[in-house]
Amino acid sequence: METISENRCFGGVQGVYAHDSAVTGCKMTFGLFLPQEAEHGSVPLLWYLSGLTCTHENAMTKAGAQAWAADHGIALCFPDTSPRGEGVANDDAYDLGQGAGFYVNATQDPWKPHFQMWDYIAEELPRVVDHNFAIDPERQSITGHSMGGHGALTLAMSLPGRYASVSAFSPIANPTQSDWGRKQLTAYLGSDEEAWKAHDSSLLMLDRGFDGPVLIDQGASDQFLNLLKPEALAHSMAARRQDGTFRMQKGYDHSYFFVSTFMEEHVAFHAEALYAL
Amino acid sequence: METISENRCFGGVQGVYAHDSAVTGCKMTFGLFLPQEAEHGSVPLLWYLSGLTCTHENAMTKAGAQAWAADHGIALCFPDTSPRGEGVANDDAYDLGQGAGFYVNATQDPWKPHFQMWDYIAEELPRVVDHNFAIDPERQSITGHSMGGHGALTLAMSLPGRYASVSAFSPIANPTQSDWGRKQLTAYLGSDEEAWKAHDSSLLMLDRGFDGPVLIDQGASDQFLNLLKPEALAHSMAARRQDGTFRMQKGYDHSYFFVSTFMEEHVAFHAEALYAL
Repeated sequence: METISENRCFGGVQGVYAHDSAVTGCKMTFGLFLPQEAEHGSVPLLWYLSGLTCTHENAMTKAGAQAWAADHGIALCFPDTSPRGEGVANDDAYDLGQGAGFYVNATQDPWKPHFQMWDYIAEELPRVVDHNFAIDPERQSITGHSMGGHGALTLAMSLPGRYASVSAFSPIANPTQSDWGRKQLTAYLGSDEEAWKAHDSSLLMLDRGFDGPVLIDQGASDQFLNLLKPEALAHSMAARRQDGTFRMQKGYDHSYFFVSTFMEEHVAFHAEALYAL
Repeated sequence: METISENRCFGGVQGVYAHDSAVTGCKMTFGLFLPQEAEHGSVPLLWYLSGLTCTHENAMTKAGAQAWAADHGIALCFPDTSPRGEGVANDDAYDLGQGAGFYVNATQDPWKPHFQMWDYIAEELPRVVDHNFAIDPERQSITGHSMGGHGALTLAMSLPGRYASVSAFSPIANPTQSDWGRKQLTAYLGSDEEAWKAHDSSLLMLDRGFDGPVLIDQGASDQFLNLLKPEALAHSMAARRQDGTFRMQKGYDHSYFFVSTFMEEHVAFHAEALYAL
């Protein structure tokens, strides 16, 4: 593992690291914030999965999460959103290929060789982080924004026992029924829609739900509401009787100004679940 | 005045606006955060001046200031750091020309026609903001980072009565004695060093001080300590018996991870002064 940078931040360290990933077959970069408490012992870890076009850097510099993570003594991990580099397939569209991994394991060419983001986030990167830093693998939670909210929700519901809590900011909530989803799931997983169902949080919520608390924030003035389809997830949560909160936030859009506004409450929500373990 | 964007943020609005500046002779862009309280009356205003290479955008997205400004009901203004555009003089170096106005009125060609950032920040932009938004011109304070800390300190000491308080993050504190200063002051103001003295906060502090409280934060692991020369300002503050606090923050560098860490305390410091008026 290679250290790209480390900056003192809110009493802890905001680092950026790179490693050769066996799962994605390329070098992967991630951000990791360790609070001061990590100098003396292992700390809980909150994953933050980013949205379309993002790298590890966007949320790390714009979401304002470190302030609250430091308050609660929690580490933050900011993975990249896809494999990258020469030899990695790509597309001219912003919503397919590099920067748009959708947190799935591609089964179709040309994506299959590198686009294995599900296994990367679920298996390989947790091992790398656990091996190199003072985090407690028994205390993990997950959140994300937009495509990353989709990733957080689908991972959380598919890996029971892994995460103490899950939250999302304006997630892509029903990708099997959206242009943010159908195109990408066809490309990565093929045209058999049965294979898509494992990657739709509204369907997973109806089918199995999450074994812990759920918090969803959605801006009512989000310019992508028709693509995000929050109503499908809200319906599924209520129909499932899911322990959780769905909030429609008046006046807010899809930007990091929205995410940063509600970050304090999301980190506090996860801290409560993590420290109850 | 043209609205570039407006995003709901911490209950208020983070806007970006552009206007034709008579002072700099070009279109200028600035960010303005208005807290929710501005819907019902005028609010105090805190200026944030940015550093080398920055535009209006850097602090607006990375400093995390809106959270605290919203808490205190204070507006934030994020000006650009120089004139820009075709026909505006520039230099290949990152620290001269566009992005590096140094908050002075240039008297030398080729800079003189557009590089009038002192008058822009001191006179024109305050009028534009006061005319268009619900801010209270009688309650203003100022802060900044690096070159912007230099600008905040020199403006505050040169305009007694204008600002209730001044603070700075890792300011360029002694530019008449630094490679971050001598080159630029020569270019913009000419080789007569007498003209430079009005733009050196360590000299101004010794000569006149500031008629209110001062707060300075400096990272002890700042990679630019030799260029910033914080020791000159600390000496001048103590020699002047200036009402103020100078803090050397162990382990912190020059980045926005440092700025965001201490932003809460800077906004609270200004709020105390602004609400005492």
